[in-house]
Amino acid sequence: MDQKTVRYMGSSPKYPEKVYLNGKILDADQAQISVFDRGFIFGDGIYEVMARINGRFFFKKAHLDRLKWCLKQIDISLDVDALEREIPALLQASGLDNKDCLLYMQVSRGVAPRQHSFPKGIRRTVMMYAWEKKLPDINNNHASVVTMADFRWSRCDIKMTSLLGNVMANEHAMQNDCYETVFERNGIITEASHCNVFFVKDGVVYTHPTGPYLLDGITRQVVLELCEQLAIEVRLEGVPASEIQNMDEAFLTGTSTQVLAIQKVDDYSYFEKEPGPLTQKLQQAFLGLKRTV
Amino acid sequence: MDQKTVRYMGSSPKYPEKVYLNGKILDADQAQISVFDRGFIFGDGIYEVMARINGRFFFKKAHLDRLKWCLKQIDISLDVDALEREIPALLQASGLDNKDCLLYMQVSRGVAPRQHSFPKGIRRTVMMYAWEKKLPDINNNHASVVTMADFRWSRCDIKMTSLLGNVMANEHAMQNDCYETVFERNGIITEASHCNVFFVKDGVVYTHPTGPYLLDGITRQVVLELCEQLAIEVRLEGVPASEIQNMDEAFLTGTSTQVLAIQKVDDYSYFEKEPGPLTQKLQQAFLGLKRTV
Repeated sequence: MDQKTVRYMGSSPKYPEKVYLNGKILDADQAQISVFDRGFIFGDGIYEVMARINGRFFFKKAHLDRLKWCLKQIDISLDVDALEREIPALLQASGLDNKDCLLYMQVSRGVAPRQHSFPKGIRRTVMMYAWEKKLPDINNNHASVVTMADFRWSRCDIKMTSLLGNVMANEHAMQNDCYETVFERNGIITEASHCNVFFVKDGVVYTHPTGPYLLDGITRQVVLELCEQLAIEVRLEGVPASEIQNMDEAFLTGTSTQVLAIQKVDDYSYFEKEPGPLTQKLQQAFLGLKRTV
Repeated sequence: MDQKTVRYMGSSPKYPEKVYLNGKILDADQAQISVFDRGFIFGDGIYEVMARINGRFFFKKAHLDRLKWCLKQIDISLDVDALEREIPALLQASGLDNKDCLLYMQVSRGVAPRQHSFPKGIRRTVMMYAWEKKLPDINNNHASVVTMADFRWSRCDIKMTSLLGNVMANEHAMQNDCYETVFERNGIITEASHCNVFFVKDGVVYTHPTGPYLLDGITRQVVLELCEQLAIEVRLEGVPASEIQNMDEAFLTGTSTQVLAIQKVDDYSYFEKEPGPLTQKLQQAFLGLKRTV
């Protein structure tokens, strides 16, 4: 099999060595929360994922600013800057001092007897863990995706842990031997279950504008910035699902997905072996950016 | 204050004495789960609430059938009949043998390293607890509600634990000194954040038909059955939000809410002191049903 046609399915996840939980660093199998945590009872929480490359977190400020913004949307109070200062000790305890890794952060509203509305005076639950992850160069992998009508809520701009809709959509992708499910809402492609989506047509890059129907991905922002640097024209317009087959190229973006060429959407293939030129150009620019971190 | 105008806000929740967790009955503060439980990471779970009155669960089969159906919708495997046989021991350990109580049941997909799609070969997490609760006679209480455009997903027929949307909507009600938020979708009233909604006009009872935009509440089903017994005409039609002020009466239904008169929707009042005649008639019939359990 030509290496250029390897279908990207992501890698199998593993448990981390250590977990930061409310100020303590614990062995992963000792990290437990109350069944009355609102993260468990209601999915009442926010999360964030950052990649560490060559000893530095990639666009850390943008990730932590988004975490602050999301927490504010649902009225959870947390000193994110203080939490940031806890990260080095977690990395050290996890044996990841000098390794590329991903960091997962989750904040729930905390533990309280079950009632829907926000309880007063409780303390949020904060959990973080990191695991070794050398992000692939991506150019040798391509994704197949399936489309689906979006059935999730209309606050997809909040990076929350009430993710059953995303989970079901991603399972739908796996059932179809695909990496991702791409959503259309009112006939317009918005985002995927854990990625943003871009299209290319006649040298112009298209992606849905930010708003309530998609997450404003950090890698999405980075790619838009790279387009500006490379003088690639961008139109912040959603592509109609009916136009997918009239596009020249398509790709996904995400923190661990990076810039991933879409080879196939449903039954339509964009290419056989090599992604289109603009996807490759942006992948190269993205890799260059990683090298200068 | 006239007792008839007491505004119903529900009661303050308390922790239970005991928690059933994966086959063990534990003190509530000992009931802990892994932070890697998908119920915590993804809100990937289903729940159910049943009321026990005069020593018997009210419409137990309907509740357990719904639990089975919901679990099936998201491919979680569980022998619900076997779980049902664990309930008496939990009630006994909780000192609730001879008391009216509510039972909360939650099933998550289980513990696994984080990945969106369904992991293979893991065991679901099952949690139940019961707490003493003498359901009020309801006639002396009335609810104020606020309306809001529904921003939740379009599988509201699944009783899942990814409830942040419902939580935010219920908090919105509390901020407005109301008991509930009533949703409208595409201009039509569907349900509330944890109740179903009914209206009455010219002697006819209206409620939204079942489907993806609302939960098929057990108490909703019971009220529809009571309407049939009482020869009250029912139309399974959603009421437009613009018609709220043209309705004669309105009420909420739910397992702990029972049949609760709506006194006020936003700024519009249906009555000053006493609910309309059909609401009262259905409340009386519902109370009668409880007495014969």
